[in-house]
Amino acid sequence: MPNHRPVNIGLIGAGRIGSFHAESVARRLFDADLVAIADPAPGAAEKLAARLGAPKAYTSVSELLANPEIEGVVIATPARFHTSVVVEAAKAGKAVFCEKPMALTLEEADQAIAATAAAKVPLQVGFNRRWDQAFHEGRTAIDAGKVGSVQLLRSLTRDPGPYGGDPAKTPLWTIFYETLIHDFDTLLWLNPAAKPVEVTAIADALVRPDFAGRGFHDTAVVTIRFDNGSIAVAEANFCAMYGYDIRGEVFGSGGMVTMGDVRRSSMTLYDNNGVSNDTWRRDTDHFVHGYTAQLASFVEATRTGTVTGPTGKDARNALAIALASIKSVSERRTVQLSDV
Amino acid sequence: MPNHRPVNIGLIGAGRIGSFHAESVARRLFDADLVAIADPAPGAAEKLAARLGAPKAYTSVSELLANPEIEGVVIATPARFHTSVVVEAAKAGKAVFCEKPMALTLEEADQAIAATAAAKVPLQVGFNRRWDQAFHEGRTAIDAGKVGSVQLLRSLTRDPGPYGGDPAKTPLWTIFYETLIHDFDTLLWLNPAAKPVEVTAIADALVRPDFAGRGFHDTAVVTIRFDNGSIAVAEANFCAMYGYDIRGEVFGSGGMVTMGDVRRSSMTLYDNNGVSNDTWRRDTDHFVHGYTAQLASFVEATRTGTVTGPTGKDARNALAIALASIKSVSERRTVQLSDV
Amino acid sequence: MPNHRPVNIGLIGAGRIGSFHAESVARRLFDADLVAIADPAPGAAEKLAARLGAPKAYTSVSELLANPEIEGVVIATPARFHTSVVVEAAKAGKAVFCEKPMALTLEEADQAIAATAAAKVPLQVGFNRRWDQAFHEGRTAIDAGKVGSVQLLRSLTRDPGPYGGDPAKTPLWTIFYETLIHDFDTLLWLNPAAKPVEVTAIADALVRPDFAGRGFHDTAVVTIRFDNGSIAVAEANFCAMYGYDIRGEVFGSGGMVTMGDVRRSSMTLYDNNGVSNDTWRRDTDHFVHGYTAQLASFVEATRTGTVTGPTGKDARNALAIALASIKSVSERRTVQLSDV
Amino acid sequence: MPNHRPVNIGLIGAGRIGSFHAESVARRLFDADLVAIADPAPGAAEKLAARLGAPKAYTSVSELLANPEIEGVVIATPARFHTSVVVEAAKAGKAVFCEKPMALTLEEADQAIAATAAAKVPLQVGFNRRWDQAFHEGRTAIDAGKVGSVQLLRSLTRDPGPYGGDPAKTPLWTIFYETLIHDFDTLLWLNPAAKPVEVTAIADALVRPDFAGRGFHDTAVVTIRFDNGSIAVAEANFCAMYGYDIRGEVFGSGGMVTMGDVRRSSMTLYDNNGVSNDTWRRDTDHFVHGYTAQLASFVEATRTGTVTGPTGKDARNALAIALASIKSVSERRTVQLSDV
Repeated sequence: MPNHRPVNIGLIGAGRIGSFHAESVARRLFDADLVAIADPAPGAAEKLAARLGAPKAYTSVSELLANPEIEGVVIATPARFHTSVVVEAAKAGKAVFCEKPMALTLEEADQAIAATAAAKVPLQVGFNRRWDQAFHEGRTAIDAGKVGSVQLLRSLTRDPGPYGGDPAKTPLWTIFYETLIHDFDTLLWLNPAAKPVEVTAIADALVRPDFAGRGFHDTAVVTIRFDNGSIAVAEANFCAMYGYDIRGEVFGSGGMVTMGDVRRSSMTLYDNNGVSNDTWRRDTDHFVHGYTAQLASFVEATRTGTVTGPTGKDARNALAIALASIKSVSERRTVQLSDV
Repeated sequence: MPNHRPVNIGLIGAGRIGSFHAESVARRLFDADLVAIADPAPGAAEKLAARLGAPKAYTSVSELLANPEIEGVVIATPARFHTSVVVEAAKAGKAVFCEKPMALTLEEADQAIAATAAAKVPLQVGFNRRWDQAFHEGRTAIDAGKVGSVQLLRSLTRDPGPYGGDPAKTPLWTIFYETLIHDFDTLLWLNPAAKPVEVTAIADALVRPDFAGRGFHDTAVVTIRFDNGSIAVAEANFCAMYGYDIRGEVFGSGGMVTMGDVRRSSMTLYDNNGVSNDTWRRDTDHFVHGYTAQLASFVEATRTGTVTGPTGKDARNALAIALASIKSVSERRTVQLSDV
Repeated sequence: MPNHRPVNIGLIGAGRIGSFHAESVARRLFDADLVAIADPAPGAAEKLAARLGAPKAYTSVSELLANPEIEGVVIATPARFHTSVVVEAAKAGKAVFCEKPMALTLEEADQAIAATAAAKVPLQVGFNRRWDQAFHEGRTAIDAGKVGSVQLLRSLTRDPGPYGGDPAKTPLWTIFYETLIHDFDTLLWLNPAAKPVEVTAIADALVRPDFAGRGFHDTAVVTIRFDNGSIAVAEANFCAMYGYDIRGEVFGSGGMVTMGDVRRSSMTLYDNNGVSNDTWRRDTDHFVHGYTAQLASFVEATRTGTVTGPTGKDARNALAIALASIKSVSERRTVQLSDV
Repeated sequence: MPNHRPVNIGLIGAGRIGSFHAESVARRLFDADLVAIADPAPGAAEKLAARLGAPKAYTSVSELLANPEIEGVVIATPARFHTSVVVEAAKAGKAVFCEKPMALTLEEADQAIAATAAAKVPLQVGFNRRWDQAFHEGRTAIDAGKVGSVQLLRSLTRDPGPYGGDPAKTPLWTIFYETLIHDFDTLLWLNPAAKPVEVTAIADALVRPDFAGRGFHDTAVVTIRFDNGSIAVAEANFCAMYGYDIRGEVFGSGGMVTMGDVRRSSMTLYDNNGVSNDTWRRDTDHFVHGYTAQLASFVEATRTGTVTGPTGKDARNALAIALASIKSVSERRTVQLSDV
């Protein structure tokens, strides 16, 4: 744990997860300073900056990027703006951390990758699950050969219920672009020896059946076939009444690892109703330590210029599966990744 | 627990599972007597009969069926003979318990159902998982509304490794007909409000990649879509190095139930290597109590004439999914159940 | 699994546990027949015999013992009669299974041991916990050296609540004679290399504080020191609102084993309240397989003349700790086992 | 999460746990600055200060206390110096966090309490277990009435093996003063409605039997009786080969809570050896978040003047049980707390 001057970080996008990241930078990372926040919503950046003691607040992204003190930016805008902000930040010479999805098309992904490469700035993407203790240990066990050759994988995301979103305002294909993108990255990352070749996806509105057939999906199952024969299933649902349920399973010729538990702690209650545990109800509670470690990694990348976490390439790879899933659902057929 | 004269049971097929069923009838069921065993292999029936104290041994099924003392038969022949033996037993007026798969075609399934209906004899099929304590409790919770409307299901079968079978002698599509048939029944049984409409299956030889492309499959993933939108995934593999792993998961609008644990007991060892549990290594060890309860149910059906366990119809329903899976793998596409 | 003529068993005492044992002999053991039942309560033996199909019912123990068909007896009378019935049964030449406690004084214990030795009949005592799968595996691990030298032990019994007993009718020291006697045997059995030397006990009426100071105890903690320095804690309570909780823990120089789980099965419910499991609520449900195996062992002992389960000596050893505990509570001091 | 000027903290004692606390202040707490370190060992304070970027290093405690910038001190010297440093720090007007045990005699404890009261400075003691998520949730459940009236409690500390200490250099009664003091505080804190009245303790050298009888103890069991009849058992051992094992259990009229799990994460490996989990091997890994929260609480106490964590009084209460345990072992008898 070397002893450096703190790195100056700017936040772009002061929404829910942006605010949480800002708090991590300001209060959970010893070697980073939150020096500026930008958000177009009147007062949003200012209010958050005041709360966290950040010296500058902007309503314009460009203004923030023009601030020469800032060494790295955390991009947490709505997804549709991610790529253009990445490109602009790269041009401004800032190290870039971008929330997932980094892009909505492969062309966008390529632009983001090219812009950061041209500017020689680090680009890291918000696949925070890789820093969760259990998932990290799972990958370590796989690398150590403990499951042998990977044959079957599973990754799931179930958001805590009751579902409070507005289907009418939810962008098309959100479940693939924003939710399952985590599982796609997780599955690729846990199966490092293989490349995905084929995707079959099913999606439906089961939480909000009143929106079925209107382009809204709250439930999906995606099957991915890899070039070495291994098969992965990714699964998502927007309303788990028991909490925020994130799990992974990797089975191979030598054994299996499982990762993830919705139980909140080892505290167990035994009473008239039986044996019970409380559960995680929010992503930022469940994964607070993983989120912090992710940003610590980005701070380190900003300092050293070298990304050790998920890169733009990783974001592109996960996006390709999301796009194949969308095509599979649209055309009701299995889709080759080479056709995306 | 009423006090009756024992029911007279005959066993047809003295292989591994037949011998185990015979032992259950002879030694684990108080209200059944094992009175005869038939097996064409020279000496097989005789040897088992001697060990279990069964009075009669035959090399001919017909001879056994001609024995008027026998009230019910347990059929544990190779799968390809199941239907014809069911039909013959029904004609002989015996109550019929048939190991899965009861039939290999829908026509055969219909013949078995018709023959037992015509003879007015009970027909029960060997989906033993329904009697496992955990799966039984899971279904009870679903019936009680504890998971709400079912949305996502999973059922898996992993046979204990190392795999010692002979791929060259394994009948085509065994993984669907003999292994996943359990999962198909489990999924239908745990989703009682829905009907399956569409199946997509992937199968491969990952345990024995030297047999890939030669009609042998040891790994499969099947996705089933139901008429109410719910989606199930069934998964099988022939070689789990950690034991006999049977699990189920049902997720719905109100919550989730999970069933199955490969850990053998609550005995937990903490030592230099960490925390560990021994595992189940054989189906007949893991599910001895479920297997026994299954036959107790058949004995009761023999006595009363009423089947409360899985019927010929249930066998046909699970078979239809197996056939759709086979078609899906053969034609590399999603298959409607109405096309099977 | 040899194929013998069934052994003829008689039951003495048709109360709750006696009826359960009778049912085990009649319906869960293939190589034993329940041939007679004796109970002084008018109609009790007759009714149970009718239900289980036992040919004979008596109101007199002596009459049952005079029945020459009977090879072994299961004694499940109130505890204060145990020793005299053991002695009488031995004199009648019957193999003896006696529920715990076999005796209430060391003199009685010696009489029971001497009488069965003189008659050369097997004497087995009802410490059923030894046959529970988890406890059995725990002992096996200890024997295999997996915990090294034993240093610390724990055994506990918590009866399921709500407590429905009548403190006014409960014999003095029941918690030691009838409840903790199981834990004392378990601790001695799990620490085979050591001898107990010293006991300190605390007992109180916490479930029914209205009976405190009136000779009734529903809660107790007993510390036992062994000659090799190892220390055991036994703990009992009459009212666990969450079920029938039986656990053991053995810690040593190489590691630890834990045994016992009040969860009823692997079926786990995840709902709005969190994660939960149902629990065991009755001894005869929780330990049905252990109780059956215990009697199977006694049936084998009756046939072969050799006891492999807990003996009269084991009953005496556990009783000595119960007596030391009683003395410790009475005199409010640590008691040497040599002073009992 | 208010936005304040950081609080200036000084560390006294740069040993293992002191260094860890310093690191927590410097790198894990956003609202505290580590401004000075004192340690008499030549170079120790300097080296740590350099590593953590603390501006000042001293070999004299008095010099550090004379630094007017410092608002609060973290005392992590050897235990025998704790009280005198607390008193000196209080006189210097510093807020005081003192590692356990705050004192080795009741007189010392009273001096520490009196000195900090006279100086009107906060005094908080290092019972970090109270901040562990599971223990915290357990206490919350107890306060919410979920276990009803507390009847039986257990708390244990097992340090990870192999034991690498030097018995010859270990101060007398370390297992009570330094190890079990945690469990004594935990038990008092989890039983808030009761006062301890009586203690019986056993201690031995089982890990290092070559030191038995020479004043060294590595294994101890302490039974505590409370004024409401509830009974607690505390247990410690210096060598758990499977890791750092800290657990608690509270049983009452309504149910039970259990807290603590040596498993390191939910990552579970299933392989040829069965099912296994890695374990916590170090206190500072297992409880890093609790340790941090503890110091965050002290920083807040320094700022506000109000201690919400364990106080000098709490330290005195736990110490009284340690002293009673020592007397109990010395005199081989049960000891009243009123006699300590």
